[in-house]
Amino acid sequence: MRNGISHAIDVVEAPASKIDSVDFDNLVFGNVFTDHMMECDYVDGQWQNPTIKPYGPIQLEPSAKVFHYGQAIFEGMKAFKDDEDQVWLFRPEANIDRFNKSSVRLAIPEFPKEMFLEGLETLLNLDRDWIKKGLGNSLYIRPFVIATEPGVSASPSKSYKFMIICSPAKAYYSGEVRVVFAEKFSRAANGGVGYAKAAGNYGAQFYPTNLAKEEGYQQIIWTDANTHEYLEEAGTMNIFFRVGDKLLTAPISDRILDGVTRKSVIALAEENNIPIEVRRVTVKEIVEAAKKGELKEIFGAGTAATINPIKGFGHMGEKYELPEQAESYAKFFKSKLMDIQYNRAEDKFDWRYLVEKK
Amino acid sequence: MRNGISHAIDVVEAPASKIDSVDFDNLVFGNVFTDHMMECDYVDGQWQNPTIKPYGPIQLEPSAKVFHYGQAIFEGMKAFKDDEDQVWLFRPEANIDRFNKSSVRLAIPEFPKEMFLEGLETLLNLDRDWIKKGLGNSLYIRPFVIATEPGVSASPSKSYKFMIICSPAKAYYSGEVRVVFAEKFSRAANGGVGYAKAAGNYGAQFYPTNLAKEEGYQQIIWTDANTHEYLEEAGTMNIFFRVGDKLLTAPISDRILDGVTRKSVIALAEENNIPIEVRRVTVKEIVEAAKKGELKEIFGAGTAATINPIKGFGHMGEKYELPEQAESYAKFFKSKLMDIQYNRAEDKFDWRYLVEKK
Ligand SMILES: Cc1ncc(COP(=O)(O)O)c(C=O)c1O
Ligand SMILES: Cc1ncc(COP(=O)(O)O)c(C=O)c1O
Repeated sequence: MRNGISHAIDVVEAPASKIDSVDFDNLVFGNVFTDHMMECDYVDGQWQNPTIKPYGPIQLEPSAKVFHYGQAIFEGMKAFKDDEDQVWLFRPEANIDRFNKSSVRLAIPEFPKEMFLEGLETLLNLDRDWIKKGLGNSLYIRPFVIATEPGVSASPSKSYKFMIICSPAKAYYSGEVRVVFAEKFSRAANGGVGYAKAAGNYGAQFYPTNLAKEEGYQQIIWTDANTHEYLEEAGTMNIFFRVGDKLLTAPISDRILDGVTRKSVIALAEENNIPIEVRRVTVKEIVEAAKKGELKEIFGAGTAATINPIKGFGHMGEKYELPEQAESYAKFFKSKLMDIQYNRAEDKFDWRYLVEKK
Repeated sequence: MRNGISHAIDVVEAPASKIDSVDFDNLVFGNVFTDHMMECDYVDGQWQNPTIKPYGPIQLEPSAKVFHYGQAIFEGMKAFKDDEDQVWLFRPEANIDRFNKSSVRLAIPEFPKEMFLEGLETLLNLDRDWIKKGLGNSLYIRPFVIATEPGVSASPSKSYKFMIICSPAKAYYSGEVRVVFAEKFSRAANGGVGYAKAAGNYGAQFYPTNLAKEEGYQQIIWTDANTHEYLEEAGTMNIFFRVGDKLLTAPISDRILDGVTRKSVIALAEENNIPIEVRRVTVKEIVEAAKKGELKEIFGAGTAATINPIKGFGHMGEKYELPEQAESYAKFFKSKLMDIQYNRAEDKFDWRYLVEKK
């Protein structure tokens, strides 16, 4: 079936929904996908024929450049449903802007912002039932681009595929998280692609993270590759440190992702008169603060987890545990953010974006 | 048709060859592929069912981890045909070892060496006619592994696909090559994946290389990300500098690929009493040598080009041209290497590997 819902986007509806086969109480993050996906191909110097169609496999030449040269970038965003069944995005333009920044760095043509938003909204309207009400429930949205040109010469692809796939998600609980400060491995170089959501940045972290897991840590906090003296970010989260009542987080750079959650936390801290310093944070000061009992919290900030409190950290073979906080900043920011995301509080910063029913 | 050529590898022959449709005089590097390919899947903790079958597209879920997290590595090697129609590989075990080193760093299960070699030899025997005689002609071989597990959580894939695809190649001529020394961008971090043939390392170079092209350079010589004072390697070649009659090249490290051509050049230099120093090479000494007229040659060493002479370089906005050398080291090493590769000279180092006809 083919409907001309939009002047530009072709819509092919799935003949039947698979939603009834999904156990929404036992979702594993990123494993189940909704009935539809968006696809758009870059050919002959243009993004062409945006289409929404049933979710399903894609076919590529084995020589497609994405397989050989990692020319691929992605985004991660979420949709939320409020008690009146309205669907909201959170700062989607920040994600679209970052998507295109990542594209530029990977020599991928930028995707038109209007087509992105229009496609996403059409997709969300089709798969509206997959977004469940209730605090913590959400739809995780994964836009990405891959290089599709066949041929193994190491040069930018001439063709690309843009896609959006969506996966229903439950309240994020990853168990107790302990992290280790990177001492040997690193995530990003000065002048590299660390600030981009480039596919290759993530695969490169798996091996060091496996080693950290063997030592009892779930994640790594990456330090600068040069000296390992400065704390930068985690694999999929920016990182905040609370020393006394002051919050610290690293400035963004060409090594660090400009996280949407991170900048929202900074804005909320300022609004709520929580002292915050955006500056290079040294391993030394955090270890010393921990020893003196002044390190009250560490938490990660990212779309998947919103805010993820960290229970302890390791450095140079020493393990440090963080005390339970009665008045936790992590909890404060998490509930502030979720209240905005689920349309339960005023939206002073104009972060919410209504996906209008069509 | 299904033949049990080997106890382990299933062979499905292409019903017809497409070789007659290929213009072997006008090959573009890496654009045409032979009739067959090798495929082997990692499932349930094991590499299973190695198969050789007709070259053709593969099908993957849009959530396959290779698309999102760049968990993918590859190799590049060549087969040569001598005047007696014998087919030779050049140091294949070095490539297989490096393949598995790259895999470990990307948290990909290693591929069994015997299965790799046996599969490759079976494939080369099937596609023997695609390897043309004559100095400069070769078959470029591209083994690679991609992460195939569906699911967008940022963790190592549980399933993988190993493939070998092959592309006939002509004598490599890329026109005159001028390079620029990297001043801002970089290729690899200490503690990163630079030493691995990780897919993401290559896509990350396309944008800076495009910028270099706008300035009239075909390639970048990467410097250390930290200070940009040391010359490391090019995008797909290790780099040698000839100052006076002395050859200089950077030592391998966790940022630099351990090139098979590079180590062969080093061995040949030693054998032929050409003074060679494997040590950090500074931008400063090379620029000064160029100014004094002591910089006689720069050349790249890699499988695709064998040896690629460089005509000039740029640094800090200055352009330097290199003089034509009557007694060129680049030419010397290229002919030494090709004589061994094409079975035209004694093989003192035991580098040649005969692909026995089956
Ligand atoms: C490397 C990295 N840092 C930080 C973040 C957090 O960014 P955001 O808050 O925009 O999700 C992410 C996830 O998107 C990430 O991949
Ligand atoms: C980054 C890089 N450096 C150097 C080389 C040269 O290595 P080899 O001589 O083994 O082909 C290659 C190509 O394989 C490469 O990709």
